[in-house]
Amino acid sequence: MAPPSAIEVSAETDTTGVTIPNPLTAPIASNNILGRRKETDRSQWGIAAASDTANFRQKSYQSKPKAKRWNYIISNEAMVRKGNSLKEAAKFLATPGLISLGGGLPSSEYFPFEELSIKVPSIGHFSEADTNVSGVTLTAGKHDLAEGKSIFDIATAFNYGQGAGSAQLLRWMTEHTELVHNPPYEDWRCTMSIGSTSALDMALRMFTRSGDIILSEEYTFSAFVETARPMGVRVCGVPIDEQGLLPVGLDNILSTWDVSTRGARRPHLLYTVPTGQNPTGATQSAERRRALYAVCQKHDVYIIEDEPYYFLQMQPYTGPNAPDVPPPASHADFLQSLVPSYLSMDVDGRVMRLDSFSKVIAPGSRIGWVTASAEVVDKYSKHADVSTQNPAGMSQLILFKLLDEHWGHAGYLDWLIYIRMQYTKRRDVILQACNKYLPREVMSWKPPMAGMFHWMQIDFKKHPDYPQKSIEAIEESIFFRNIDHGTMCMRGSWFYANAEENHDTLFFRATYAASPEDKMDEAIRRLGESVREEFGLDKYMGEIVNGH
Amino acid sequence: MAPPSAIEVSAETDTTGVTIPNPLTAPIASNNILGRRKETDRSQWGIAAASDTANFRQKSYQSKPKAKRWNYIISNEAMVRKGNSLKEAAKFLATPGLISLGGGLPSSEYFPFEELSIKVPSIGHFSEADTNVSGVTLTAGKHDLAEGKSIFDIATAFNYGQGAGSAQLLRWMTEHTELVHNPPYEDWRCTMSIGSTSALDMALRMFTRSGDIILSEEYTFSAFVETARPMGVRVCGVPIDEQGLLPVGLDNILSTWDVSTRGARRPHLLYTVPTGQNPTGATQSAERRRALYAVCQKHDVYIIEDEPYYFLQMQPYTGPNAPDVPPPASHADFLQSLVPSYLSMDVDGRVMRLDSFSKVIAPGSRIGWVTASAEVVDKYSKHADVSTQNPAGMSQLILFKLLDEHWGHAGYLDWLIYIRMQYTKRRDVILQACNKYLPREVMSWKPPMAGMFHWMQIDFKKHPDYPQKSIEAIEESIFFRNIDHGTMCMRGSWFYANAEENHDTLFFRATYAASPEDKMDEAIRRLGESVREEFGLDKYMGEIVNGH
Repeated sequence: MAPPSAIEVSAETDTTGVTIPNPLTAPIASNNILGRRKETDRSQWGIAAASDTANFRQKSYQSKPKAKRWNYIISNEAMVRKGNSLKEAAKFLATPGLISLGGGLPSSEYFPFEELSIKVPSIGHFSEADTNVSGVTLTAGKHDLAEGKSIFDIATAFNYGQGAGSAQLLRWMTEHTELVHNPPYEDWRCTMSIGSTSALDMALRMFTRSGDIILSEEYTFSAFVETARPMGVRVCGVPIDEQGLLPVGLDNILSTWDVSTRGARRPHLLYTVPTGQNPTGATQSAERRRALYAVCQKHDVYIIEDEPYYFLQMQPYTGPNAPDVPPPASHADFLQSLVPSYLSMDVDGRVMRLDSFSKVIAPGSRIGWVTASAEVVDKYSKHADVSTQNPAGMSQLILFKLLDEHWGHAGYLDWLIYIRMQYTKRRDVILQACNKYLPREVMSWKPPMAGMFHWMQIDFKKHPDYPQKSIEAIEESIFFRNIDHGTMCMRGSWFYANAEENHDTLFFRATYAASPEDKMDEAIRRLGESVREEFGLDKYMGEIVNGH
Repeated sequence: MAPPSAIEVSAETDTTGVTIPNPLTAPIASNNILGRRKETDRSQWGIAAASDTANFRQKSYQSKPKAKRWNYIISNEAMVRKGNSLKEAAKFLATPGLISLGGGLPSSEYFPFEELSIKVPSIGHFSEADTNVSGVTLTAGKHDLAEGKSIFDIATAFNYGQGAGSAQLLRWMTEHTELVHNPPYEDWRCTMSIGSTSALDMALRMFTRSGDIILSEEYTFSAFVETARPMGVRVCGVPIDEQGLLPVGLDNILSTWDVSTRGARRPHLLYTVPTGQNPTGATQSAERRRALYAVCQKHDVYIIEDEPYYFLQMQPYTGPNAPDVPPPASHADFLQSLVPSYLSMDVDGRVMRLDSFSKVIAPGSRIGWVTASAEVVDKYSKHADVSTQNPAGMSQLILFKLLDEHWGHAGYLDWLIYIRMQYTKRRDVILQACNKYLPREVMSWKPPMAGMFHWMQIDFKKHPDYPQKSIEAIEESIFFRNIDHGTMCMRGSWFYANAEENHDTLFFRATYAASPEDKMDEAIRRLGESVREEFGLDKYMGEIVNGH
């Protein structure tokens, strides 16, 4: 991060209406977000108005290199697509005095909503209990924009919009992206998605054709495989270790690719979840990422960086009896503690980064965003214009009120630190339960550093009936014993990148995100019982006191 | 409609909490919606819980015929798609006492929202001014479901959901669909869409393959053409008159289809906007629809019925000086005044109907729904599970509070009657302006009966420079003269189903939905000026009084 500039520390006051005279805000102040905001063109706040995220960035970007062009891997579908021609007629709306009988936009007179309010936590008082006491109610009126009360309102947000999303919220996303990732090329842009599952569907339609094979972790997000398969696109699993993708493994696959054996051209696309990967929980280190990026450069592979868990990076794990690591002391410390993203090292513009609010605000917003080169973002938003359209304006308005007008960037970072500490606590609870209940003779795991998932390996070779009983059969037995014992963990085989390949590992995935702490402890106890039964091991007898 | 049953008139009271002792609710009462609701399985209100819309319908449906199977026109992509396997693991969650470490659903503890409120109109007091005085505030709490206060809340709606949408709002949609359309086959279902543009995109991926040609009105919704084209799917325009699609024209195209001339297999898909079509404003009569459905049966064509404007059917146009037709006297009268949908006559299950809230509530909800046979709806929602996911839970909760808990079905019909009267007034304003300002020598139009669009023909053959000046050139001149005069209307050529075909008609489309009444009058005056100039006609001199 650039060094904090004391005189700009409270600059964010202008927008949020909340004074934050706090040195923690230094990284935000040094980015001069508020200074830039004053230069904003007001016409982009209008109904379905066009915007350009380049306007929301630091002007110094002009000196960085331009992104590579990707037309040679972009699908025919995406190349042909022109977007919505009627939305383009919107450019004439800027003519002064023009009365439009053009767009079929309903009049907000007939939106049956006068006000929308949300009660949300104050900065620094984030828990449910605290919110109950000190939460504040944010209200959006129907005509706040016209009345000069806000730059976003019901009349605007609840009408049609651009596929890219509203300028109001897109500005916040762009500033946040610059603050956290600061991409090292000039022509990066942001555009909204309706969530990363949809972004992935649209990315696959942009970058693949039927018959293609894509690269990914050998255990991968199952919805990714299920999204790709009906398009005729298969996934080739890349070997992993506890840090995820192995650069040597990736290089090896690409260097030795044989078109006739594989039945597909050499892959030009890598899909990866670099932080708290689903299902393995693995987080690629900075060094690992740099090595993988270099392999992608060598073989000209484009990267889809899917990062829902980026801000679920937790505190270092100190073990069962060691004292906790204190939380980050400042925003600068917090940002520095985060493993750098591919986007932050993307000198070529070969990364499409998918950000999501699902894990850090709420999945029900169905809002995320895509950061990539202008070429890619333009094709993405043109597709959105004739399919998904923009994310729900109702959600956009709610997030804008919370993130931009109430918390601001500083408050959001505080919230993310809060979430970090909460997930750290949850992870420590599940690890403690594992240490206590699981049979070390046949089970092993690494403490996850990010995300929602704990990935536990089972040494199937120690099963009394192995090899008569196959890996699959052992996995299935444990799954159903687990259900019988009253708990559910996900089967590793559900996450095979390619189910047709042979696998000689057996895993279960448990999440520590969902259940209350006492239930988690009990669920892991039941898992331990299931595995002990399956392997014919002694029952867990508890910490034996007084002969019990 | 079935005859009203007096004793069930106030049955809706149970759900809405508002007593409606009103004979207007008769159609709703006779449908016994509330009686059926009592039998509902509560497990479907849970987070991302599965639901079956069959449960929300009248049981008498079992006697109706089953829908035809469509596997022979369903694409390989849709046949192969299995949906999201992890969501299917959700079936184990019903096990009593089960603690799930399965799904990666974040805990609602970390949703930074304690309450959501909307201020909305009371039934019968729908205008903005009335809402300001008598509007009511509806509030959703975070844990209303667990606390027994409501069947929907923030903790549920703001988490992940099923591609089909939440049971809470899907129930309302299913009941509404049965009330209004009562499809005449047994296995119809509803599933949510994130809006009809997306539903269309998904329908095309389900029913077409690259190289196909689809049938549609010769002037059609441009986003439809722009959605289809990148998939390699072209549109063949069917001749229309003031009631839209011509059955003879449709039959003729299908009967004489020559694969080698056309370069595509015979079309098996008709896309139509039967009511207030965009851009022509045409509404197919009941008789016309029956004739078109018969042609589709003859040639085994599947129908996509896109009906955003269904409830923008207006009062009959009585001319400039005749008294207005009084509004519908009851819900039964209102429902009877509506032209029957294709869905309501669909004995084969060959219709996919797209409903939308965009024109009757607000586009910013990004919520609509699809009604079709169980086979088609199942494939649609499986696709949603791995792409769009469910509509934003924030929007779903807002619509649920308004439509189900506050207005109920009766209140919603009252709202639709209000909207009908408003659009009638707007249409009458634009028609009055047209009568006053437009040069009848070269312009002609029919009063629209539904929708948002007024479609005006220009007799380009009367242009002094025709045929030296082409249709396209005349259209373009008028468009830019219009911009110079300070108004915008859409060019008819932007709506060609197939821009490569020859066209010998010239139209402009004006919407009466968006502008205030006085602005509409002025915009049409400017349009009149532009056309007069272009054709070298005398200027409009106003209603001459005192020699001015």
